[in-house]
Amino acid sequence: MKWNDTLTGIDRRALVSGLALLPVAEALPSTPALAQVVQADPLASWNDGPAKQTIVDFVHATTDQGSPKFVPPEDRIATFDQDGTLWVEHPIYSQVMYCLDRVPAVVELKPALKKFESFKTVLSGDREAIAKLSLHELEQILFTTLTGMSVEAFVAEASKWLETAKHPRWKRLYTELTYQPMLEVLQYFRENGYRTYIVTGGGQDFVRVYSQRVYGIPPEQVVGTAGGTKFIRDTDGKPFLMKEPKLLLNDDKAGKPEGIHLMIGRRPRAAFGNSVGDRDMLEYTSAGDGARLMMLVLHDDAQREYAYGPTRGLPDTRVGTFTPELDAEAKKNGWTVISMKDDWKRIFSLD
Amino acid sequence: MKWNDTLTGIDRRALVSGLALLPVAEALPSTPALAQVVQADPLASWNDGPAKQTIVDFVHATTDQGSPKFVPPEDRIATFDQDGTLWVEHPIYSQVMYCLDRVPAVVELKPALKKFESFKTVLSGDREAIAKLSLHELEQILFTTLTGMSVEAFVAEASKWLETAKHPRWKRLYTELTYQPMLEVLQYFRENGYRTYIVTGGGQDFVRVYSQRVYGIPPEQVVGTAGGTKFIRDTDGKPFLMKEPKLLLNDDKAGKPEGIHLMIGRRPRAAFGNSVGDRDMLEYTSAGDGARLMMLVLHDDAQREYAYGPTRGLPDTRVGTFTPELDAEAKKNGWTVISMKDDWKRIFSLD
Repeated sequence: MKWNDTLTGIDRRALVSGLALLPVAEALPSTPALAQVVQADPLASWNDGPAKQTIVDFVHATTDQGSPKFVPPEDRIATFDQDGTLWVEHPIYSQVMYCLDRVPAVVELKPALKKFESFKTVLSGDREAIAKLSLHELEQILFTTLTGMSVEAFVAEASKWLETAKHPRWKRLYTELTYQPMLEVLQYFRENGYRTYIVTGGGQDFVRVYSQRVYGIPPEQVVGTAGGTKFIRDTDGKPFLMKEPKLLLNDDKAGKPEGIHLMIGRRPRAAFGNSVGDRDMLEYTSAGDGARLMMLVLHDDAQREYAYGPTRGLPDTRVGTFTPELDAEAKKNGWTVISMKDDWKRIFSLD
Repeated sequence: MKWNDTLTGIDRRALVSGLALLPVAEALPSTPALAQVVQADPLASWNDGPAKQTIVDFVHATTDQGSPKFVPPEDRIATFDQDGTLWVEHPIYSQVMYCLDRVPAVVELKPALKKFESFKTVLSGDREAIAKLSLHELEQILFTTLTGMSVEAFVAEASKWLETAKHPRWKRLYTELTYQPMLEVLQYFRENGYRTYIVTGGGQDFVRVYSQRVYGIPPEQVVGTAGGTKFIRDTDGKPFLMKEPKLLLNDDKAGKPEGIHLMIGRRPRAAFGNSVGDRDMLEYTSAGDGARLMMLVLHDDAQREYAYGPTRGLPDTRVGTFTPELDAEAKKNGWTVISMKDDWKRIFSLD
């Protein structure tokens, strides 16, 4: 296996440092309740306030034929970061959890991997040690667990994991930890003729496994960090696509507008993010003519979710960094910051 | 400027050899006539026969809820090669004509390019010499004329060219030389809930300029050979995407299924092509479960369009090669070959 050295966009600390923070056993009661509210208000989980009003005003202005800000239907593209914008990203990205969880099975298939320090460390289960893996070692883990199999085999593996793996704090499936207010935004935009796209630093193939079911977003509207595939034949001569350890698109920071151009070919009218990784996507969106909406989710609710920043007195945890510079840029450019604490009545779709 | 050496998929002869074949002055009368037929038959420009019947049967079987071959709407993806499948590719790909036509303007901006033999040759206008350019020289021309500018500047340039440049034989705009029977297939598939995608070896950004207007296919449904972009700032600090001389996806041969996975993430239910460049796309399509449709356009109509193969006694012109091996594979696998001469009542949308 050849390691690709171009995966420079991944911040090692951002990926695994959260591991050390995992609570050993935290048993918050899970209180699922059916969300069968008659939605006269399409944004029912939002408190009245400037964030909600900004969204409603934008959708009204861009879909009203008489408005000077009217946007023709074909041009209605809205892009959404995933981790920290549509679902929980703390204490560690769920896809990295997936890769770490897959290590034992991969090592069983390829025992030679046990010789690598990185694999030894993951197999040891020592969270402190895993959190200290180098970027290069982490790349080994990611490429080995995400590639070297057919596209179909990957989908089967990832689906199985998603059906059983649970978040350490809430003891719930990761796919249940989506933000209800953002699901409402996705739906509200679609009902108003917008095509909603996920534009994520996460793996494109990974997110496509559940995007339709969880977000109502089909695979072709998921733009993410993408590895190459190779069209080859199996021993019976049947052709298939093999996932290769080769990075085609690092869909983070500048890679987001670049990925949007590659995969969509249109500039978004609205873009939602939560960190410096989304800054370039929001700048690209805002640099277009006419009505544009740029919004950032601020994680300031330690009680119901997490509080991290490091802006506005929030701790710097490196995952999903909302920096003071990003905060200042948002203020300067009139981007709207969504306070999870103040703007959201509820957090999760199953609350 | 740094040349990318990975553009191996381009066959130099395929790209420019047609130039030497250009007629010096051929004045076939152009007979545009409004195509205002009441289309009780969605495939009115097709003669009754096995090719037409195969298309109709496939669409009926996959959209009839009671059929064992029913395909749910979200899975209805049909992919179409462009050059030689949706429009004329002889005597030379129109995008290569565009690049050659742009050389004088590019040299005016960057006079240093005049030092290169390749640019000297193109500026000389000597078709025989241009047809003999090496692959490396041709890459220089393509990268120089297609990159080093903003995405918006490229769209403006390409649009201008498409509004004026004419095909040497018919003296018509290239966008008028689309095949009416294939436009009907696109429309027929869309009316039956299929999303139609172009999957072309041609430039993704180039085809996106006119795909909506000409084929009714939006930019996000064009998969093509794609170069990278770089998200940078102009001197006023305004961010934009610069087209870079870096190949991200060579969307030909195995690159077609690979590109389909990258950009769509689903296996097509139907695939149309006309050459060995489309073989892998058809194989990928056919390797899926359930109903699948694979079709190949055979250019066997020298009078109304062109005849080239080199199969079935047709000459080998290297552009859009329909080889004996491809013909044999089509027969063996039950793929349907469309004879332009026998299956199409008319060729062009403006005939």
